[in-house]
Amino acid sequence: MKISKLVVGAALCASGFLACPAIADEGMWLLNKPPVDVLKSRYGFTPTPEWLEAMQKSSVRIGASGSLVSADGLVMTNHHVASDAVAKLSSEGNDLLEKGFYARTREEELKCPGQEVSILWTIEDVTDKVNGAVSQGMSPAEANIARRKAMSTLEKQNQDATGLTSQVVTLYQGGRYHLYGYKRFTDVRLVFAPEQAIAFFGGDTDNFEYPRFDLDVAFLRIYENGQPYKAEHYLRWSQGSNDGELAFIFGHPGRTNRLYTVDHLKHLRDFSTPRRLQQLCQREVEVQVFCGRSAEHQRIGKDELFGLANSRKNLTGQVAGLLDPALFAKKSQEEARLRSAYQQQNPSAAADPWDRLAKALAGSREFSPRQGAIDATFRSDLSRTARTLVRLAEEKPKPNGERLREFRDTALPSVMNNLYSPEPIYDIQQIDQIASGLTYMATTLGADDPVVVATLAGKSPRARAHELVTGTKLKDIAERKRLAEGGAEAIAQSNDPLILLARSLDAESRSLRKRSEDEVEAVERECYAQIAAAKFALEGDSVYPDATGTLRMAFGPIKGYTDGGKPVAPYTKVAGLYQRADERKGQAGFELPQRWIDRKTRINLDTPFNFVCTAETIGGNSGSPVVNTRGEVIGLVFDGNIYSLTTGFAYDDVVSRSVSVDSRAIIEALRNVYDAGPLADEILGKGKAAASAR
Amino acid sequence: MKISKLVVGAALCASGFLACPAIADEGMWLLNKPPVDVLKSRYGFTPTPEWLEAMQKSSVRIGASGSLVSADGLVMTNHHVASDAVAKLSSEGNDLLEKGFYARTREEELKCPGQEVSILWTIEDVTDKVNGAVSQGMSPAEANIARRKAMSTLEKQNQDATGLTSQVVTLYQGGRYHLYGYKRFTDVRLVFAPEQAIAFFGGDTDNFEYPRFDLDVAFLRIYENGQPYKAEHYLRWSQGSNDGELAFIFGHPGRTNRLYTVDHLKHLRDFSTPRRLQQLCQREVEVQVFCGRSAEHQRIGKDELFGLANSRKNLTGQVAGLLDPALFAKKSQEEARLRSAYQQQNPSAAADPWDRLAKALAGSREFSPRQGAIDATFRSDLSRTARTLVRLAEEKPKPNGERLREFRDTALPSVMNNLYSPEPIYDIQQIDQIASGLTYMATTLGADDPVVVATLAGKSPRARAHELVTGTKLKDIAERKRLAEGGAEAIAQSNDPLILLARSLDAESRSLRKRSEDEVEAVERECYAQIAAAKFALEGDSVYPDATGTLRMAFGPIKGYTDGGKPVAPYTKVAGLYQRADERKGQAGFELPQRWIDRKTRINLDTPFNFVCTAETIGGNSGSPVVNTRGEVIGLVFDGNIYSLTTGFAYDDVVSRSVSVDSRAIIEALRNVYDAGPLADEILGKGKAAASAR
Repeated sequence: MKISKLVVGAALCASGFLACPAIADEGMWLLNKPPVDVLKSRYGFTPTPEWLEAMQKSSVRIGASGSLVSADGLVMTNHHVASDAVAKLSSEGNDLLEKGFYARTREEELKCPGQEVSILWTIEDVTDKVNGAVSQGMSPAEANIARRKAMSTLEKQNQDATGLTSQVVTLYQGGRYHLYGYKRFTDVRLVFAPEQAIAFFGGDTDNFEYPRFDLDVAFLRIYENGQPYKAEHYLRWSQGSNDGELAFIFGHPGRTNRLYTVDHLKHLRDFSTPRRLQQLCQREVEVQVFCGRSAEHQRIGKDELFGLANSRKNLTGQVAGLLDPALFAKKSQEEARLRSAYQQQNPSAAADPWDRLAKALAGSREFSPRQGAIDATFRSDLSRTARTLVRLAEEKPKPNGERLREFRDTALPSVMNNLYSPEPIYDIQQIDQIASGLTYMATTLGADDPVVVATLAGKSPRARAHELVTGTKLKDIAERKRLAEGGAEAIAQSNDPLILLARSLDAESRSLRKRSEDEVEAVERECYAQIAAAKFALEGDSVYPDATGTLRMAFGPIKGYTDGGKPVAPYTKVAGLYQRADERKGQAGFELPQRWIDRKTRINLDTPFNFVCTAETIGGNSGSPVVNTRGEVIGLVFDGNIYSLTTGFAYDDVVSRSVSVDSRAIIEALRNVYDAGPLADEILGKGKAAASAR
Repeated sequence: MKISKLVVGAALCASGFLACPAIADEGMWLLNKPPVDVLKSRYGFTPTPEWLEAMQKSSVRIGASGSLVSADGLVMTNHHVASDAVAKLSSEGNDLLEKGFYARTREEELKCPGQEVSILWTIEDVTDKVNGAVSQGMSPAEANIARRKAMSTLEKQNQDATGLTSQVVTLYQGGRYHLYGYKRFTDVRLVFAPEQAIAFFGGDTDNFEYPRFDLDVAFLRIYENGQPYKAEHYLRWSQGSNDGELAFIFGHPGRTNRLYTVDHLKHLRDFSTPRRLQQLCQREVEVQVFCGRSAEHQRIGKDELFGLANSRKNLTGQVAGLLDPALFAKKSQEEARLRSAYQQQNPSAAADPWDRLAKALAGSREFSPRQGAIDATFRSDLSRTARTLVRLAEEKPKPNGERLREFRDTALPSVMNNLYSPEPIYDIQQIDQIASGLTYMATTLGADDPVVVATLAGKSPRARAHELVTGTKLKDIAERKRLAEGGAEAIAQSNDPLILLARSLDAESRSLRKRSEDEVEAVERECYAQIAAAKFALEGDSVYPDATGTLRMAFGPIKGYTDGGKPVAPYTKVAGLYQRADERKGQAGFELPQRWIDRKTRINLDTPFNFVCTAETIGGNSGSPVVNTRGEVIGLVFDGNIYSLTTGFAYDDVVSRSVSVDSRAIIEALRNVYDAGPLADEILGKGKAAASAR
């Protein structure tokens, strides 16, 4: 289906890309640059500035996406977004992922270690200020450093002036720079999470598939000064939605590559994506083995396993999309037009930006595997903590603009929050993760590489990981504080084996990162800025930037589709859950929680459970609210169907769909499965909770 | 434990390798060169020629290993060796892997499609004849071709003269050549297989672990001219074994690399093994996804999944072993001594064989990934059939000695048996396997490689695989016959899409294979012949060759070990099975078959179930009989413990163990779980079956 769509798409737009700036309901739009004309002409809907502001300030960033749904700071997101926090609140014999959790009172709400939530509050275009830092004659690397320095300065100034956590976001791969100010919260508590078995019903088998029957929802609450956060903006709940109704999705899509050049896509196709997929598969198998060792291993490892399987399925879809020749045919056609327009505008340019970029990417193949191999050691919490401490000591004394970007002043509070997080650390898992990273390093670089020899110190990867984890004191938060506060001297004097390891690898790791920034990132910024300028000149304002993990709006109706000749209805119902559980009895991932078996007679089986719409999403959108034109919650995005996996490269609304939990299923389950009436009342703005909120 | 063992081993043998030609009970010995002195001095046992002949002619090759255990051609092997045949005899709704199978009468025995069994009947040292084909001044590649030609001729002569299927085996990586004559059988029928759940109890979690509780046994019967084969030699059943008793294992260990040079081991460590492991993991995840789609996908895919998981665990152990610096320290020390001895013997040689070999292996890195990528297309039954037909047409008209080795006259009967096998072929599986191979090709070579472009023909890998599998007629055995008999002309005229694909890839595939044979295999043969000569000169006859998938004998006592400070008893009992099933209730791989639950009260829980011994084994040994000094069956090898996974590189009898099913458990289960008394009687040489056999 996908192939024919792309071909049809190209054929219909006889004049090609330029005539089709936004096909159908395409786009992950900036909230300060919404597609007003399209919405008006196609749906007769004009988003007012007030509506947009309310949506923006009701959306939250919480790893992925979420939204405020009560005046008392209640946040709705996916179970699989909150699952990391739920896992950290679990312990042997008290597995909240398995059992679920509901706080009947505010006092029972559980503080999530290290959890942060942010709300995007202000947006300013600072493109000219960032580019103004570049002077004539600078090399791309020098210009890149100058821009990064300007960004850190702008962020610091804004943060000092407003108190908002500030971040300059690079849009259009370097075509624009926007300064975002966030309200940031670090006291976030777990209110409700269902059993993982119903949140992820169908397991890996049904992941990215449709029809679905998942209650992939969790509720958390933001606290400020020990009190529930009094939200100025939050989403009201709807009465439900209908087939064909226009839906909006607000969330943080992580990354798309639609504006990538053809050679850049080929770099993904032939080099970076298959390599990442192979690594993921290998680690997935390793964690499966880890989980098989005992019930406790299973409890500790399953969250990593879920994440790996999810990413792997995602990348598998991307590889399949990249290997579709129709996609490249269309991209090449589009690029040829843009490139010839560019060359007419810039007749004197020697190598055009497409060529310079291709050359930089080809050059990266020489050092990027080495960079990945060395950094693989730092995939575990403990080893990452060691690296953070080592780098913090070196970076903090430098001027703000000259530090590694993650250590700039505006980012430090998050770094410290993470560094001192009291989340549980399991030796068996740390050993497994570090041994895996060391093995990857050794097999990628060859075990005779001096870095490998020094890192393994005469031991096998597993023996070395065991020695590092049992020998370190970094499990102790006080020790982390001592090292962080002691600065360079404390680090230099530390004999902690993980600190010593992080120190020994740092010089080469930094030098490879510098090559990556100077030789690739810098060229990307410069070339894409030129390509974007050409694009804007041709297409005006109708181009939306690739996803960057920041707030975007997508839109499109609730709508079924046809799969392999069979119609797929837009909604599923609760009755279908019980039917599917029956059909797949005994298969992993299809066991119903006892509570759902017991309450079958009480829950309304006719309740809409999940639905699909054409508004597009991608990884990072998990937990996004789906709202109607009144801005009311009609659903909660938790997945895309299998055809959405190539969304990163091209849009297709024929079969590609976002998959959401229906708002009605959430209320029905809270009331009739989980006896969580007060929570349902709070969401609906009813009863005591609502009264106290106003 | 492993590390300390290797270090201790090196320290104890102060004079190093030369003084320790066989440490403890090391060795996978040739039956025509048994370690008589060691057996006599250490165990007071002298194997007579008659004993050795009986063991040789009671052992069978059946993919891996097996043995004749009755006068009526009854063959014992592992369930996991027979599982491929059992899967082929299954169909939707009749899954013999799940249900198990027992033929109550000879008439109920099921013919296994394509199955072959061979018995090694004669052995002749033909080293001089093979090397005699090489004349002075030939390049290594020319010499290699000459040797291969001589081998084909010797095989053909022997086969014509004796009627035995003849094969020249390359020993010591080229140090010796032996001509083996096999009795070959192609009518093999399934007699008994338990449920896979008890054969592979503990699943992937317990695989390569100990203690174990697996009934990994199956019985087949050889037929000749429609009648059970009257075996001249077969193994009698024992009364059971005891802790400390000397055990012998006869089987077909696939491959060890103990005589490899240090650089060759580094080539495995840094290049080939990690690559293979990554591929395996990726395919394992793919097949897991395939199996998740439906119960029928699961039935079709689980045999491939089992094999992948098994190989993956094996390679993971190998990588871990190769990354153990102690192993390389010991190998380097040994090599230095041998090499200096060689250099004294050959003062005038320019580059010594170690250097020439290292250079050849380094050179192979340039083309071997490409070779693997192109051949990945031929991993499915259908695509492999297409390639076989294309090559058969080209090879058959050539003189015997000039063909690709797998098409020499003596190998052709097996090729044709396989080609015309009526085993079931499932489109969904063929599509999945071919799509996987095409994706691997495209991501390894880059999708713009002309070979990839031609192979994918403008389609994505999955779309192309779908087109190939639904378009081919090779599922039809008559069509395969027509093409095989029609020769080059029939192939040239065929429009079958898989034939066209195999033809289009054949030139490059052959040319890469020729490079591999000329530039690597040829150099290996020549260099290892020289290294082996140096070794023989120093160490005499006490060196056994690396495993080659041909019949070997290993020995060592039944003996427990210490793991992580805890003693591990040599035997487990049936009672332990029920206990472990209880402990791991609800975890995949630990469900008992209903029959075992029902018969718990009837089976003697005190029966020894599995045991370990120090006699060494490796992949290919699965199904090997374990016998006592009287040559009676005391067990059936089905696994090694986790410490045995580095057996390929070095031997260690401190913690490395082979794991076997106890002969007593087999009889107890046949009688009291499976109501298969007549089969037990036949094995024990009792009652009607035995009477009819004599």
